[in-house]
Amino acid sequence: MVFKKITLIGTSTESFDAAADNALDRAESTLDNIHWAEVEELGVEVASADDREYQAEVVVAFQLDE
Amino acid sequence: MVFKKITLIGTSTESFDAAADNALDRAESTLDNIHWAEVEELGVEVASADDREYQAEVVVAFQLDE
Amino acid sequence: MVFKKITLIGTSTESFDAAADNALDRAESTLDNIHWAEVEELGVEVASADDREYQAEVVVAFQLDE
Amino acid sequence: MVFKKITLIGTSTESFDAAADNALDRAESTLDNIHWAEVEELGVEVASADDREYQAEVVVAFQLDE
Amino acid sequence: MVFKKITLIGTSTESFDAAADNALDRAESTLDNIHWAEVEELGVEVASADDREYQAEVVVAFQLDE
Amino acid sequence: MVFKKITLIGTSTESFDAAADNALDRAESTLDNIHWAEVEELGVEVASADDREYQAEVVVAFQLDE
Amino acid sequence: MVFKKITLIGTSTESFDAAADNALDRAESTLDNIHWAEVEELGVEVASADDREYQAEVVVAFQLDE
Amino acid sequence: MVFKKITLIGTSTESFDAAADNALDRAESTLDNIHWAEVEELGVEVASADDREYQAEVVVAFQLDE
Amino acid sequence: MVFKKITLIGTSTESFDAAADNALDRAESTLDNIHWAEVEELGVEVASADDREYQAEVVVAFQLDE
Amino acid sequence: MVFKKITLIGTSTESFDAAADNALDRAESTLDNIHWAEVEELGVEVASADDREYQAEVVVAFQLDE
Amino acid sequence: MVFKKITLIGTSTESFDAAADNALDRAESTLDNIHWAEVEELGVEVASADDREYQAEVVVAFQLDE
Amino acid sequence: MVFKKITLIGTSTESFDAAADNALDRAESTLDNIHWAEVEELGVEVASADDREYQAEVVVAFQLDE
Repeated sequence: MVFKKITLIGTSTESFDAAADNALDRAESTLDNIHWAEVEELGVEVASADDREYQAEVVVAFQLDE
Repeated sequence: MVFKKITLIGTSTESFDAAADNALDRAESTLDNIHWAEVEELGVEVASADDREYQAEVVVAFQLDE
Repeated sequence: MVFKKITLIGTSTESFDAAADNALDRAESTLDNIHWAEVEELGVEVASADDREYQAEVVVAFQLDE
Repeated sequence: MVFKKITLIGTSTESFDAAADNALDRAESTLDNIHWAEVEELGVEVASADDREYQAEVVVAFQLDE
Repeated sequence: MVFKKITLIGTSTESFDAAADNALDRAESTLDNIHWAEVEELGVEVASADDREYQAEVVVAFQLDE
Repeated sequence: MVFKKITLIGTSTESFDAAADNALDRAESTLDNIHWAEVEELGVEVASADDREYQAEVVVAFQLDE
Repeated sequence: MVFKKITLIGTSTESFDAAADNALDRAESTLDNIHWAEVEELGVEVASADDREYQAEVVVAFQLDE
Repeated sequence: MVFKKITLIGTSTESFDAAADNALDRAESTLDNIHWAEVEELGVEVASADDREYQAEVVVAFQLDE
Repeated sequence: MVFKKITLIGTSTESFDAAADNALDRAESTLDNIHWAEVEELGVEVASADDREYQAEVVVAFQLDE
Repeated sequence: MVFKKITLIGTSTESFDAAADNALDRAESTLDNIHWAEVEELGVEVASADDREYQAEVVVAFQLDE
Repeated sequence: MVFKKITLIGTSTESFDAAADNALDRAESTLDNIHWAEVEELGVEVASADDREYQAEVVVAFQLDE
Repeated sequence: MVFKKITLIGTSTESFDAAADNALDRAESTLDNIHWAEVEELGVEVASADDREYQAEVVVAFQLDE
């Protein structure tokens, strides 16, 4: 059993929780065997967003096919 | 005055906030003089949970009896 | 273009999100060109608060006038 | 010459060395020009394994085709 | 569900693997619900040991009773 | 031989040295086989203290009984 | 909006700037929506290079298609 | 003698060196007694810049008036 | 309630404690609501000092006026 | 009593343990009073080795003569 | 001008300050152009010492002869 | 094969690249088998220099004679 980790940054105009979920939703749309995720960083984009854009950098670990 | 620190990981199917509160609730059920807590890590367990299980690793500092 | 970073700690009796927003609100009340913010630490003050006080240490980056 | 790095977690019921080799074996099965690897973390999974499952998180660097 | 983490340092005159196992064996002799462990540091004691004493600092996470 | 590490925060109105000693004194009042200690952080509490309260976070390593 | 991060190591016999640009050039040859990059490490390879080979490890963040 | 540290991010379309100099130039335009500076991070902004914008986060230490 | 953090480096020809106190004294001469301080680094300047100059980098947290 | 620390990287075609021992053997061939060692990093060289070359970066602490 | 850094650990039965001075004294007994020193770690050895032995790991920077 | 690492700080009034090269030049003047180097820190000395003095802390790894 071997896992691979990829790093995604989810965004949301609502909350950090929604930003992290956003990243996980995207991961689940293309990956089958996600086992866990680690939140690496939380941030807020202000300048290029209409309002505050919450961001959550999330490392997603999934099992590779044998 | 001497403090001790312990490390707990709270879990919740709702949010990171609830996961951290969960850890603090558990700490308060057995410890009297909690002064503060520090969030060390946030993560999400997917594989062994029915749905996403939010996790918050929390270091709790409490005052020892003299 | 030069940015400056300052470090604020927002507090809230509600949630970590509100604590971070609190720090950003304060920054926006005195600074014009905020571009982004980074959450450095999350914590909970218990001893000196009536109830749990959620805290978010936030580094705010803003553009300096030329 | 440009390298890319990916992060794999190898597992083994035998040892940390075997877990790291496991990750490298997997990388070599799909990548041609692996140059080096860095061990990022060692851990042991107990709850979801029959016995102890040794884990080695390994960052693998390989050369991209020009 | 709440987990607690404790830090043990296992030792062995044989290998780092045996040192880590040593720490886990000790943890399992007094704790029921160990879920995982993280290796924090590896070291070798020379001066106060007959021969080389391999050491593995291991953080053990176990589930607290409800 | 297995060691355990615990984290204490000693305080003193005099100095950082006294704060660290304070933590070690407390550890020695309940633990028999302390081998070494590591200073993790130094700080000063001002708001909730009459005067400056020096604090030393100290990780204490002691040998567990076999 | 979700971003993904990948890690590349650019090389150059000229300078660290050229090494970082090298990594970015490669990323732009296959990725459309690069938003920013972070320099993680700078190094110099001597033994396996004719002369000094400057290296820049660069994390590139790009927006995923919706 | 007491120093204060502030954090600036210089930018340049030319190089990391120019970005760091940019931050130092700005600091010297308002501060008299700069003693040294530390480069904390190097990055490249791509999305909101016409071309690549090199960025250098620089911590500047200057002596406070007595 | 919002806190701000600033970074000062106190110096002393006597001791690290005096260097940290020096930084705190300076902070208290211009700031009203200091709550706590964190020692970030300790160092010794030799070349540009008559004798050894002990230095303590101290992050000071104070409450902003509402 | 004053200690000095030096950093060695041992290599082995067999295992990480052998690589660390290799570094310690070399240290002991020229230094008399080695007290302890800390493993800083583990890695694997692939490109310039016939087979996998395990590497262990080891910081060795030895007592200086008075 | 090129500097070199070496790592020493000074010890003292009195205080952390004395332990750091101890390391600097030793460095000055063999090196001419010491410019500055950085305290990396503070610790206390208990088991192999008669009483508490304070330790300060100090990185010493000195100018190399041209 | 065993490597040793030493830490040098190169300086230049021109650029960070020249500062790093400066450190490598010095290393090569006394060491035969340098394999690679890692840039640990970049900084600028202002107070004790006529103009800005760029500094690059470089860890140099070289192979020890067997």
